[in-house]
Amino acid sequence: MSKTDYPAAVTRLILALKQLPGVGPRSAERVALWMLQGGREAASELARAVEAARDSVTPCPRCGFFATQEGCGLCTDATRATSQLCVVEAAADVLPIERTGAFRGGYHVLGGRLSPLDNVGPEALRLPGLRQRVREEAVEEVILALGSDVEGEATSHFIEDSLAGTGVAVTRLAQGLPAGGDLGHADQLTLLRAFHGRR
Amino acid sequence: MSKTDYPAAVTRLILALKQLPGVGPRSAERVALWMLQGGREAASELARAVEAARDSVTPCPRCGFFATQEGCGLCTDATRATSQLCVVEAAADVLPIERTGAFRGGYHVLGGRLSPLDNVGPEALRLPGLRQRVREEAVEEVILALGSDVEGEATSHFIEDSLAGTGVAVTRLAQGLPAGGDLGHADQLTLLRAFHGRR
Repeated sequence: MSKTDYPAAVTRLILALKQLPGVGPRSAERVALWMLQGGREAASELARAVEAARDSVTPCPRCGFFATQEGCGLCTDATRATSQLCVVEAAADVLPIERTGAFRGGYHVLGGRLSPLDNVGPEALRLPGLRQRVREEAVEEVILALGSDVEGEATSHFIEDSLAGTGVAVTRLAQGLPAGGDLGHADQLTLLRAFHGRR
Repeated sequence: MSKTDYPAAVTRLILALKQLPGVGPRSAERVALWMLQGGREAASELARAVEAARDSVTPCPRCGFFATQEGCGLCTDATRATSQLCVVEAAADVLPIERTGAFRGGYHVLGGRLSPLDNVGPEALRLPGLRQRVREEAVEEVILALGSDVEGEATSHFIEDSLAGTGVAVTRLAQGLPAGGDLGHADQLTLLRAFHGRR
């Protein structure tokens, strides 16, 4: 006597939801059942939104941010300064910087960072495009806004080296205590860097 | 100078994800960006799975569990006893009971519980179907497996009253301390019910 299980289509839906980042087996099941009961309309809209975004949104060939048929919101914005270029790992890093309002230059999305353990070498990143933009777009400053962990640091170093001789200034985001963070909660490396970066 | 935002299709996707239960604004954004980068294939599969489940899965007209064209896994299972009928609020409550292995009778999914504040009265629940099954299917015991909060209790009382005179035995799941729960963590009402239900 086997125990009753969900119909195959429900199990498939649970499995598909479990692939999403941050969704575990229990919440996948909860969301799937909600989709089949009160949330049918919202589930259909999600399916349509996924397909619409997949069909219309591609990486901008120039900067790597999200582009549609109308072009890339960053690259078509004539009010942005081309003298400054902010290099980020992922398209998702652009909006947090935009929201600060502190930067009105261009962006260049690398599409990852150097990670020998995961077989991500320089050829997997959008580095030739970066060098080309530095050469052709009268860039004066390249701001490296990569992660401050080991792989982010290594990627920053690599880019710095690869831009040597182009005459462009290469800067990095400051490292230090997070806003509102007290000393007792800062790890040793953060504290060390905050000391070195004091001003 | 407006700050750059995501293309409209991305914003729509984030909004659709935010409708899912347990998904907040930050995780909706994280999932949406993941869908447009590394997770494109998984996102497409999710859209297809949502549509397949929506098109093929409907509530079983008899018991209210999930049914497909092949019928309902519960109602087509000839090995299940018809003398016992377990009443649950939602289709999602069936599998947790199935997983205990303690029950091999039939189920009846109410599709909710009485909730005057939300305008859910008896006519919104699958109660006529329950009475009909009790009359026609030689049911000997109706097991009420509803929530133990106020609305669940009120619904249980209502069903008990409405089955009075049919001759069927109506029982309820035991209430008491959860397995592994120590006394210090039990709330007052749980402890009171555990006392009353001692055996």
